[in-house]
Amino acid sequence: MENTKQLESALDQTVLSAQQLLDHWQGHRRLTRKLIEAYPADQFFSYALGGMRPCSELIAEIMGMSSLGIQGVVSGRWDNFQPLQTSTKEQVLAHWDQVTEQINTLWPQIQPSHFQEVDVAFGQYEGTIYWFILYVIDNEIHHRAQAYVYLRTLGIAPPAFWDRS
Amino acid sequence: MENTKQLESALDQTVLSAQQLLDHWQGHRRLTRKLIEAYPADQFFSYALGGMRPCSELIAEIMGMSSLGIQGVVSGRWDNFQPLQTSTKEQVLAHWDQVTEQINTLWPQIQPSHFQEVDVAFGQYEGTIYWFILYVIDNEIHHRAQAYVYLRTLGIAPPAFWDRS
Repeated sequence: MENTKQLESALDQTVLSAQQLLDHWQGHRRLTRKLIEAYPADQFFSYALGGMRPCSELIAEIMGMSSLGIQGVVSGRWDNFQPLQTSTKEQVLAHWDQVTEQINTLWPQIQPSHFQEVDVAFGQYEGTIYWFILYVIDNEIHHRAQAYVYLRTLGIAPPAFWDRS
Repeated sequence: MENTKQLESALDQTVLSAQQLLDHWQGHRRLTRKLIEAYPADQFFSYALGGMRPCSELIAEIMGMSSLGIQGVVSGRWDNFQPLQTSTKEQVLAHWDQVTEQINTLWPQIQPSHFQEVDVAFGQYEGTIYWFILYVIDNEIHHRAQAYVYLRTLGIAPPAFWDRS
């Protein structure tokens, strides 16, 4: 009886499930993919504002952090972070899709209790695993939004922020 | 015994708790507050890039969505969305701090099971409550990042993205 109450209470406290967090991440990744597609190929590797990095480097950071991040979350091994090198938008998109598959493949291997465990991501950033995953997603939103501004100043309307299809 | 296993399983599936989600949101809000503080007062209401809105309007949207959003989440009543009107940075910061208190006050009133319930936010956006709260946070990250680019083009270094203190 006591256990039943505890069970109800525990289930009540599921803010979101692991599957919902994966869907949330992949929804943002679909939006970022649309942003890459919308970006003019001849500006992707060069155009920037305010002394910032071009879109290619922002995307390389996002891809590298996502790919090495999910591997680190699952395995506890953190490879040295380095952005992925690409020289065409097609290479970027092909690599993007590989990372999408990688995340989907590795995600179910995260032990449910692991989200509340502490690790040192990339040997430098200590925090709980849920915190690190949210950080990776937030970092993607942050840099993608900067590329939105680049696109606007190039006279191109970015994909709708709310559309994660 | 069966219940004990279910309980362990349910507790194991807590990706993050309601308190952790609140901390995550308020961490982002602390960063946005630092961005507002760093922004030159004489550019806050006027400067923009690419035909976009000035920082003041991005922040007004964030504040309005956060304040009306938390009220809607708790009460199920959704007031018509309208950005808050302000004319000085001091007014913005004072209002920002009121919203911080409002969120902290209302948050514990969210019933734990409510995060997985569906509502129609602002009478328009149907989704689960956890999804809506993440949307509000993501929208803040997105618009704040755009203000980061404005700041960079004004020659000012924005606050560090990772510092949520």
